[in-house]
Amino acid sequence: MDIRKLVVEFVGTFFLVFTIGMVVIAPGADALAPLAIGSVLMVMVFAGGHISGAHYNPAVTFSLLLRGLIEINEAIGYWIVQIIAAVIAALFVGMIKPDMPADVMVGSVGIVPVFLAEFLFTFVLVYVIHNVATAKANDGNSFYGLAIGFTVLAGAYAVGGVSGGAFNPAVFIGGAVMKIFSWGYSWLYFLAQLTAAASAAFLFNYVDDGK
Amino acid sequence: MDIRKLVVEFVGTFFLVFTIGMVVIAPGADALAPLAIGSVLMVMVFAGGHISGAHYNPAVTFSLLLRGLIEINEAIGYWIVQIIAAVIAALFVGMIKPDMPADVMVGSVGIVPVFLAEFLFTFVLVYVIHNVATAKANDGNSFYGLAIGFTVLAGAYAVGGVSGGAFNPAVFIGGAVMKIFSWGYSWLYFLAQLTAAASAAFLFNYVDDGK
Amino acid sequence: MDIRKLVVEFVGTFFLVFTIGMVVIAPGADALAPLAIGSVLMVMVFAGGHISGAHYNPAVTFSLLLRGLIEINEAIGYWIVQIIAAVIAALFVGMIKPDMPADVMVGSVGIVPVFLAEFLFTFVLVYVIHNVATAKANDGNSFYGLAIGFTVLAGAYAVGGVSGGAFNPAVFIGGAVMKIFSWGYSWLYFLAQLTAAASAAFLFNYVDDGK
Amino acid sequence: MDIRKLVVEFVGTFFLVFTIGMVVIAPGADALAPLAIGSVLMVMVFAGGHISGAHYNPAVTFSLLLRGLIEINEAIGYWIVQIIAAVIAALFVGMIKPDMPADVMVGSVGIVPVFLAEFLFTFVLVYVIHNVATAKANDGNSFYGLAIGFTVLAGAYAVGGVSGGAFNPAVFIGGAVMKIFSWGYSWLYFLAQLTAAASAAFLFNYVDDGK
Repeated sequence: MDIRKLVVEFVGTFFLVFTIGMVVIAPGADALAPLAIGSVLMVMVFAGGHISGAHYNPAVTFSLLLRGLIEINEAIGYWIVQIIAAVIAALFVGMIKPDMPADVMVGSVGIVPVFLAEFLFTFVLVYVIHNVATAKANDGNSFYGLAIGFTVLAGAYAVGGVSGGAFNPAVFIGGAVMKIFSWGYSWLYFLAQLTAAASAAFLFNYVDDGK
Repeated sequence: MDIRKLVVEFVGTFFLVFTIGMVVIAPGADALAPLAIGSVLMVMVFAGGHISGAHYNPAVTFSLLLRGLIEINEAIGYWIVQIIAAVIAALFVGMIKPDMPADVMVGSVGIVPVFLAEFLFTFVLVYVIHNVATAKANDGNSFYGLAIGFTVLAGAYAVGGVSGGAFNPAVFIGGAVMKIFSWGYSWLYFLAQLTAAASAAFLFNYVDDGK
Repeated sequence: MDIRKLVVEFVGTFFLVFTIGMVVIAPGADALAPLAIGSVLMVMVFAGGHISGAHYNPAVTFSLLLRGLIEINEAIGYWIVQIIAAVIAALFVGMIKPDMPADVMVGSVGIVPVFLAEFLFTFVLVYVIHNVATAKANDGNSFYGLAIGFTVLAGAYAVGGVSGGAFNPAVFIGGAVMKIFSWGYSWLYFLAQLTAAASAAFLFNYVDDGK
Repeated sequence: MDIRKLVVEFVGTFFLVFTIGMVVIAPGADALAPLAIGSVLMVMVFAGGHISGAHYNPAVTFSLLLRGLIEINEAIGYWIVQIIAAVIAALFVGMIKPDMPADVMVGSVGIVPVFLAEFLFTFVLVYVIHNVATAKANDGNSFYGLAIGFTVLAGAYAVGGVSGGAFNPAVFIGGAVMKIFSWGYSWLYFLAQLTAAASAAFLFNYVDDGK
């Protein structure tokens, strides 16, 4: 296990969740929150990609594990660090912005739309990551961070009003600490995100010829 | 015919039309809808370009057919898949957002402005694609997805209020299923989009020296 | 004289001015107009750079002439085409949007702020272009269009409220046809833009070591 | 000491602070101010990176000094020029926009949140810079300016409402001249920014293996 990779995962996940908390719990700024969130993910991917692979998302780590691009020991380390970073980020948001919102998500929308929203955009996020960051045909490109970050931007605009736009179990956990998401629906989000990650890994293996 | 390419065309067109439906049928978020749409097209182009060429648009496939960069059999496969993906995406939007808007487009604006709007920005979209994704002088660049996606962003801001900003027969069809566009004007949109695609292919052949 | 280059200059300048007209003459959409304008310039630069150099701006052509990167004959051709494209674009905007605004610029702001606004951001635009598109140290980069387009985006946000944010004699002329700018102040805009272009060329020659 | 580098630092810092002043002191445009600020930093980094390294920020120069990537003599020159550029930019904003706002920052928020806000995003800004612009693994990339500029964009959205989002002693000084920041809190901003810069340099040395 390489501690340096875990540190990079911590930094990236921390700033992703911290930024989400700061821009979502901000009356009036909501319309541009996805731009801020997509941008911070982009910059953390560009910054940390060469060291840890820049997952910052347990579902991404899971899909890379399924493809054999990370070993189980290291994946467990990534998951633990990602979750700890998300919780600490949520606590920092609480220190800076004491007024946390009450739960607002899911209840009013229904389980099927939330599942679809989280499944579809976690799927496309993981599909984009496999293609831009692991496909041999795209070796050495300079767009991988932009593609990954702005997938979340598009998803947040598309389905943010339905599921809150987590696409990431660590974001869900950090968001639940901040009361953006409700703990009672964690099974729904995790199920959607992990099945999406597995589906995207499977699809990538089928469509990419490895050259 | 390579099924893997069709799968990639399906995924890209599906998420393009799904995102359009989700952000356009959203009261209040309209001002940033073009950012979401341009971004999702960008990321799908970066993700799928190395496999299918990332058309996601029958007019793009048509213009590449005219230049001999795709064979007619494969082009027909692309068209069918693009249209099916657009229809299915529209149905998914309907599952998540039951309240579809009534037809709003075209009638109040007039046929000439709609034709010009769709012609001009489909033309520039296809012109950009030929230059950034097929010109030898730009081989190996990392900007093709950004250029293609943000052409649609600019077009959506420029003429979205005139024609709805389809620039893509599959988007029109998906949009018509969602009642964003009116079926009665399909001939006008298709005419504008396909003549624009042909014009852009012709112009590219003239201006690019193939080196 | 290479006609193909002039065609590319026509297309790029046309879509730049057309987009400006469509987004500026649009009640309510003003806040995002700079994003649309910066994006369309970016995509036209990426699309046409390999053929004509993607000037789309008589001040840019002027500054490249001063550095000996374009010959006077060709520069005159570029200027004529850029201005014609801008006028035609303005007429197309008029066909689609009959309601042109009355003159609003300059009068209420004062000559010195307008001069400074146009000088400073034309200067930085030309300075960026020389550095990202002509400096040997940046050969083969994939960011030149993004840098150039988003300079205009930043300038439009920074001083759009002061001078209207032309930074380009062709944009001024097209804008004057659309009554966004007032013909009576053309001397002020041209003076600011051309002295800025000359200053930026001079400064670039000083700071860049040619390696 | 290479005067050309100092000139490039002057130009970049000037336009960064000038743009900040113009977009922040603008009633109504606040929501998109971070996009303008992130964009101008991005373009100045792309333009000047090959000459001066494009610091435009005394905290960045400080962190590179700690890593031995710049000599103390040159660093002092950079600091002086960055501060002079920021002050002159503030004076230009004053010439164009005579109505300066009264101090608004810090007092109402509390010292701990301001310290955290400035520390965290100066840290991530410097961390991103070291990774994208100095790590051997990222040599020759085309994304460094995008990553650096959009870090500030994300930070401005995330904590702009807390600390004003300086992340840069020169921006603080220019902002204080424009009364966006209060001189009385300069120690707090400088302490947060410089300790963040040192921490990020230290962390980078730990996580990057130099290959």
